[in-house]
Amino acid sequence: MVVGPQPKGDVTCSEVLMSRIPLLRSIARIIIGGGGSGGGEGRPVEVAAPDPVPSVVYLLVNDGSCVSSLQVVIDSSVSPVNQFMAIGTSVLLEGLLKEPSVPGKHVIELQVEKVLHVGTVDLNKYPLTKTIYPVDFLRVYSHFRPRTTTMASVTRIRSALGYSTHIFCQNNGFFNVHMPILTSTDSRGHSEMFQVTTLLGKAEMNTKDDSGELDIINAAIKEKRSRIEQLKRNESDKEALLAALRDLQKANELVLQIEQQKSKFLPSLKDGKVDFSKDYFSRQANLTNSSVLHLESYACALSSVYAFGPVFQAEKTRHLAESWMVELELAFADMEDVVKCAVNYLKFLCQRILESNSDDLKFLSKRKEKTCIDSLQLIKSSSFEKITYTDAVELLKKVTDKTFKTKIEWGMSLAEEHESHLAEAIFKQPVIVYDFPKEIKPFYMRLNDDGRTVSAFDVVVPKVGVLILGGQREERFKSINKRIEELGLPREQYEWYLDLRRHGTVKHSGFSLQFEHMVMLATGVENIRDVIPYPRTPGKLSY
Amino acid sequence: MVVGPQPKGDVTCSEVLMSRIPLLRSIARIIIGGGGSGGGEGRPVEVAAPDPVPSVVYLLVNDGSCVSSLQVVIDSSVSPVNQFMAIGTSVLLEGLLKEPSVPGKHVIELQVEKVLHVGTVDLNKYPLTKTIYPVDFLRVYSHFRPRTTTMASVTRIRSALGYSTHIFCQNNGFFNVHMPILTSTDSRGHSEMFQVTTLLGKAEMNTKDDSGELDIINAAIKEKRSRIEQLKRNESDKEALLAALRDLQKANELVLQIEQQKSKFLPSLKDGKVDFSKDYFSRQANLTNSSVLHLESYACALSSVYAFGPVFQAEKTRHLAESWMVELELAFADMEDVVKCAVNYLKFLCQRILESNSDDLKFLSKRKEKTCIDSLQLIKSSSFEKITYTDAVELLKKVTDKTFKTKIEWGMSLAEEHESHLAEAIFKQPVIVYDFPKEIKPFYMRLNDDGRTVSAFDVVVPKVGVLILGGQREERFKSINKRIEELGLPREQYEWYLDLRRHGTVKHSGFSLQFEHMVMLATGVENIRDVIPYPRTPGKLSY
Repeated sequence: MVVGPQPKGDVTCSEVLMSRIPLLRSIARIIIGGGGSGGGEGRPVEVAAPDPVPSVVYLLVNDGSCVSSLQVVIDSSVSPVNQFMAIGTSVLLEGLLKEPSVPGKHVIELQVEKVLHVGTVDLNKYPLTKTIYPVDFLRVYSHFRPRTTTMASVTRIRSALGYSTHIFCQNNGFFNVHMPILTSTDSRGHSEMFQVTTLLGKAEMNTKDDSGELDIINAAIKEKRSRIEQLKRNESDKEALLAALRDLQKANELVLQIEQQKSKFLPSLKDGKVDFSKDYFSRQANLTNSSVLHLESYACALSSVYAFGPVFQAEKTRHLAESWMVELELAFADMEDVVKCAVNYLKFLCQRILESNSDDLKFLSKRKEKTCIDSLQLIKSSSFEKITYTDAVELLKKVTDKTFKTKIEWGMSLAEEHESHLAEAIFKQPVIVYDFPKEIKPFYMRLNDDGRTVSAFDVVVPKVGVLILGGQREERFKSINKRIEELGLPREQYEWYLDLRRHGTVKHSGFSLQFEHMVMLATGVENIRDVIPYPRTPGKLSY
Repeated sequence: MVVGPQPKGDVTCSEVLMSRIPLLRSIARIIIGGGGSGGGEGRPVEVAAPDPVPSVVYLLVNDGSCVSSLQVVIDSSVSPVNQFMAIGTSVLLEGLLKEPSVPGKHVIELQVEKVLHVGTVDLNKYPLTKTIYPVDFLRVYSHFRPRTTTMASVTRIRSALGYSTHIFCQNNGFFNVHMPILTSTDSRGHSEMFQVTTLLGKAEMNTKDDSGELDIINAAIKEKRSRIEQLKRNESDKEALLAALRDLQKANELVLQIEQQKSKFLPSLKDGKVDFSKDYFSRQANLTNSSVLHLESYACALSSVYAFGPVFQAEKTRHLAESWMVELELAFADMEDVVKCAVNYLKFLCQRILESNSDDLKFLSKRKEKTCIDSLQLIKSSSFEKITYTDAVELLKKVTDKTFKTKIEWGMSLAEEHESHLAEAIFKQPVIVYDFPKEIKPFYMRLNDDGRTVSAFDVVVPKVGVLILGGQREERFKSINKRIEELGLPREQYEWYLDLRRHGTVKHSGFSLQFEHMVMLATGVENIRDVIPYPRTPGKLSY
């Protein structure tokens, strides 16, 4: 039973487990009263055995529901204790929760009466031990790393941040819309995107059918060649050599035939362009890099909408190929409205995580020098400084106590060093930079009256950098049409988008949060590959 | 301001709008008191003008936050009224909310004092009019269709179902995990998947660089050819003909050169297989068709987890190429546990939608003959019949009052006609069919002691069909290893998955809900393409 009352009083561990309520979080809440105590050793099970041939073992059992572990005592009279000795062993136990026999950091322990299940570990092959692992080591074992306390905490905080996003949006009248992943529209204009096809699969499929065959023929060819070499050296049998040569030729022809068969499924060119006529969508299909354009169509119908899903980028940069993005879009809203909304959203997230995941935050702070709690507190209490891009550039130009790698000039994108100097050195709090030159922002940002800048904004946070990108969308048909022409974007892709300006156009604005950056802020984890379960970067795809 | 108190008492419409709180839902809640009244005309604005040259217009304004529309009165002394006449016009108005001047179905109306914005409509090109549209007509206009009352209701219900999913899971201790979309693992085994590549983009990019060039050359070639024909007829100038022929050859060579340049970016074969060495991931990457395998790795660490995201399938069937799926996975749970969880989840969804979206349901019921409310009520109150696959086949074999298109035999998949007969004719309520032959279920389902069936289950709902698929996963290394071998699956793809059985294995179970089917059930909408914002089907990708 998933929905049910929380177990109270004298329950057996098995009852708790069987009731499908997270074991340790429940125990921590009911008996210890919130805080929890020890544990957090970064592995599912820790074993303490008083002597080499122990008669009693003390295990620290964790079920992933919270940081704390439960101390478990197993006497060898109940079960052979050797089977519990390996880190990573899974157990299902029945027993009595009671005060610890030996006073220590644990306020409760489980005296085991019955062992229901043991899932052993092959110690020679299991990569996790008692050590605290360097993160890049763990990255190789994406399927095991949530078993460490650090990654489990990151996962719980990521989950809470996502849920808080839904709560914020739903409580404020936003509707969640599932925007398409497969698209023919480039939402950024001129960006490198992944293509989606079934053609390569067809070629591979065709390979599969004869996969064995081809390997066999290739092996046979190798053999035939060595036999021919042998026959050549041994000049006596001309007849046999001739037969062997003919045989080889036949085999080679067969290979060629099979390869040609497969090739015909490969994408080809037609009039100088890739021929998609045989492809699934009969045209080029890409993986979306942002939902903003599609989301606008829903904002123009339902007023306040949000999307929360994966986005993709094929640039070989330090970014992830696949990441999650939160996007909010508001009709009848200008930049000021949407900036307020973005700030409220960020403050709500921080407030909620500080309350709901305090144990995880405490654990991560110990490991990560408290940066995450500070960052969350800062955003929660900050008033958010606002400055135009033009003023920010002027300020940065006047900086004398620091030399930037790149000298800033009006018209350039702010580099990381400039942003961090603004937020950390100058304002010492989150900063909203707005009114950027139109050239460095997407084509759909609303042109300001000066004709040079657009109503776009960045939220820059100390130690994290740009967290949110947003702005007011160009709602005037003439302006957006001109911008698409200026940039030489393929107009036919954007006709449907222009329709939103042709028919019942309204002022509207929105912003996006790169979700992984928020998780990094909230956890203090420094590498983006460690805040997403299965990170995808160039050349890396082992799962 | 998004977060703020709800406006009360005597506020202007502009204040309400500016406060970013959904206009009509707030008004309906505060003044009308929940129910709302008229409206639901399926378009953003309806106009009623008493005479051809009206001095007063009555508009029905809807902001997409609920079914009800607000009656708005504009006098020609405030603003020229002609501009409001077209359906789909967007307006931002200031005025006083008051009792209607003419008693009717509206209990409140807005007397406009100031017109702040009008977004006009090009009547000749705007596809939506006062008519009630056939759904397949609307499908062509995915960017406009949420402006109709039906699609707006579907969108609101879809959003509420998603939010309810998060509430159910989070309240029951499940953590949300973002599972990868890009994967090298086929979670079903031998299924048709989409491939993801950057190679085609490179070939296209290379085309872009000279897109103009190639068109110009091809046009020139055409011209040259016609000139040669002319010269041939007119035999006098041999010298000119020769020069023209040389000229043509040169142009042809240039085209060939450009095409070759592009071709080198196209995928090619190496040892009979597609050569992915130059591709983004240096290997074949697919779009996921299910998160189950990856999710299991998180269940084995955090006990209860769920995924909610898009999945993809490249089979050219009546299914969507891109759809959303909810997947729950529970450690220390057998099939009985997970069946209970699935039933609780379904009941929770139905209960909540009946409460939170009653207006939408009422509106859709009128249009769709009340099927959706009935379906939701049925699930909410049903006890869910349970029957083994074997018994179900026996029951179906005995059916005499109906002839099935396909005669059922043990070992076959249940067809739609069999499932609907079970749920609608025999049991007249949702049915859980379980213990299926292993051949018709995925390789990871747990083998029963009979050696022929696996612990898998389907939840079949009257009028909807299979809503949930689930079961207990094979946790025993030997069994799952044997199954992978039997099916000839590429073992190297599943090594990481087998690791979960090698190290600390536990009983675990899970299920998946095809989210679109749930939306169809809750809305009564019959075509799957009408419950997802931008449907993707073979050959269709215009956005």
